Amino acid sequence: MLQEMLKDVVRTKSYQNVMYKNPFLFKDKIVLDVGAGTGILSLFCAKVGAKHVYAVECSSMADMAQEIVKQNGLSDVITVLKGKIEEIELPVDQVDIIISEWMGYFLLYENMLNTVLYARDKWLVKDGLVLPDKASLHLTAIEDADYKEDKIEFWNNVYGFDMSCIRKQSIMEPLVDIVDQKQLVTNCQLLKTMDISKMSAGDASFTAPFKLVAERDDYIHALVAYFDVSFTKCHKLMGFSTGPKSRATHWKQTVLYLEDVLTVCEGETVTGFMTVAQNEKNPRDIDITLKYSLNGRRCIVSRTQHYRMR
Amino acid sequence: MLQEMLKDVVRTKSYQNVMYKNPFLFKDKIVLDVGAGTGILSLFCAKVGAKHVYAVECSSMADMAQEIVKQNGLSDVITVLKGKIEEIELPVDQVDIIISEWMGYFLLYENMLNTVLYARDKWLVKDGLVLPDKASLHLTAIEDADYKEDKIEFWNNVYGFDMSCIRKQSIMEPLVDIVDQKQLVTNCQLLKTMDISKMSAGDASFTAPFKLVAERDDYIHALVAYFDVSFTKCHKLMGFSTGPKSRATHWKQTVLYLEDVLTVCEGETVTGFMTVAQNEKNPRDIDITLKYSLNGRRCIVSRTQHYRMR
Repeated sequence: MLQEMLKDVVRTKSYQNVMYKNPFLFKDKIVLDVGAGTGILSLFCAKVGAKHVYAVECSSMADMAQEIVKQNGLSDVITVLKGKIEEIELPVDQVDIIISEWMGYFLLYENMLNTVLYARDKWLVKDGLVLPDKASLHLTAIEDADYKEDKIEFWNNVYGFDMSCIRKQSIMEPLVDIVDQKQLVTNCQLLKTMDISKMSAGDASFTAPFKLVAERDDYIHALVAYFDVSFTKCHKLMGFSTGPKSRATHWKQTVLYLEDVLTVCEGETVTGFMTVAQNEKNPRDIDITLKYSLNGRRCIVSRTQHYRMR
Repeated sequence: MLQEMLKDVVRTKSYQNVMYKNPFLFKDKIVLDVGAGTGILSLFCAKVGAKHVYAVECSSMADMAQEIVKQNGLSDVITVLKGKIEEIELPVDQVDIIISEWMGYFLLYENMLNTVLYARDKWLVKDGLVLPDKASLHLTAIEDADYKEDKIEFWNNVYGFDMSCIRKQSIMEPLVDIVDQKQLVTNCQLLKTMDISKMSAGDASFTAPFKLVAERDDYIHALVAYFDVSFTKCHKLMGFSTGPKSRATHWKQTVLYLEDVLTVCEGETVTGFMTVAQNEKNPRDIDITLKYSLNGRRCIVSRTQHYRMR
């Protein structure tokens, strides 16, 4: 997984470009790296002239990061702190910049956003930078007959036995997978934008309306969510998208299969609301509710479906 | 993972064939299914005339298995018991047959062998059947320059930084992956055969010698372990292999990268010993030690490497 993330060049090169192409942001600044992992982001910051970088990592990877900093001769610029953001002490009162790669699948699954917001409120100087500072969730719809058959309808006949009770559970589980842009049937709709420099932790739970317009006559088997992040304080806007029209990342996309196959004609709209919330019993889990309706020539549907990422 | 295992047709069809082609083994017999999962093996047994099947599953999948048994009208033949083999009670004193799909990666990683042996000693009638009853571990050697470069040497230069301390850790981690049979440089050597109907739990820790003979001039980057299982009590011998010459399974193969690249000439031998043992601190982990030496025309090497599956 560690290697998979580093080898995700969309992810790692985006951060590298933000730093290498905007040294003016980092020159003589104090940086806090939240969830540093191998320390790669801290190394980038050190290279472009940060005064000091505090790399905080709570897993045993902190020991590796420490060794890597030393091997690369940057021990005087980067301090690795092993521990939780909520528990560590910094030798400074404030930091100028917080960097983090906190995003999870579906942006919000098993993410470190709350930790970043905590660090921001505790350590970031007034008007300091959070990088990235914007994250947006998007929704679209796809034709996916073969894969739905393979993943969901599979349970209706397993070596001659009826396992449809597992089908019921399986359709409630969002599937993290790569979607081919040829499968897109509708436009892509912005659901929610989060301003990491201002938002509160509660803003990660929300209900947002959507309206997806069919761009051709086709079937819709699933809605698909994905996210973008941006670094708006760079010399020019930088960032990346994890959408199906962009180069694939290790985040892939998140596929929410629909109970019904929707038969849409070009120009018809699927409208509805998506609600996203932490599960109350298991705060690591995410509950997603989709209300959708289509009032088309070939197909009239109105339904609510519940999903759970766990 | 559940679907991946069911869709592994080598795995599931092998068990199905054992049952469907040997109904004489199951007719009017009491069967215990250890780690039943969805209950698929119990369903197969019920179909071929078992008198009664006790399907034991400790995870919440037991509830699904219960529902599946009911949906398929087999509630009078299959009883699903939710719990650990060590803790459940059976309404009978003995069973005639124990079936289980207990094998993990590298045969022994996160496996249920000890549970099967416990069930055998507690519940199986004298001269009862354990299916499968034989499992063998094998070793071979491969050329794997590209992948070793990609997976291991990667750490020497990560976006311009030296992370070779992670390389050291990474080479100690056996890699579960599909090996192409074209990569094979030597013969395949049987390391160890286990007789599930007779062995004790301690027999899963062992040291075995090996002698791999190069079948062409080539480089060796890794040794590769895999396993076979057999059902020797069928009308004719049945079973399957997870080796690189057989159809791929979800177990893939287990690749142990070597520190040195071995340059071998046809006919030269790599000899040594493999030791396999449970880790003392974390019994779920497996420690593997490889001692190997090559006294060839182009290359003289003698080394010991330690690996840990976790």
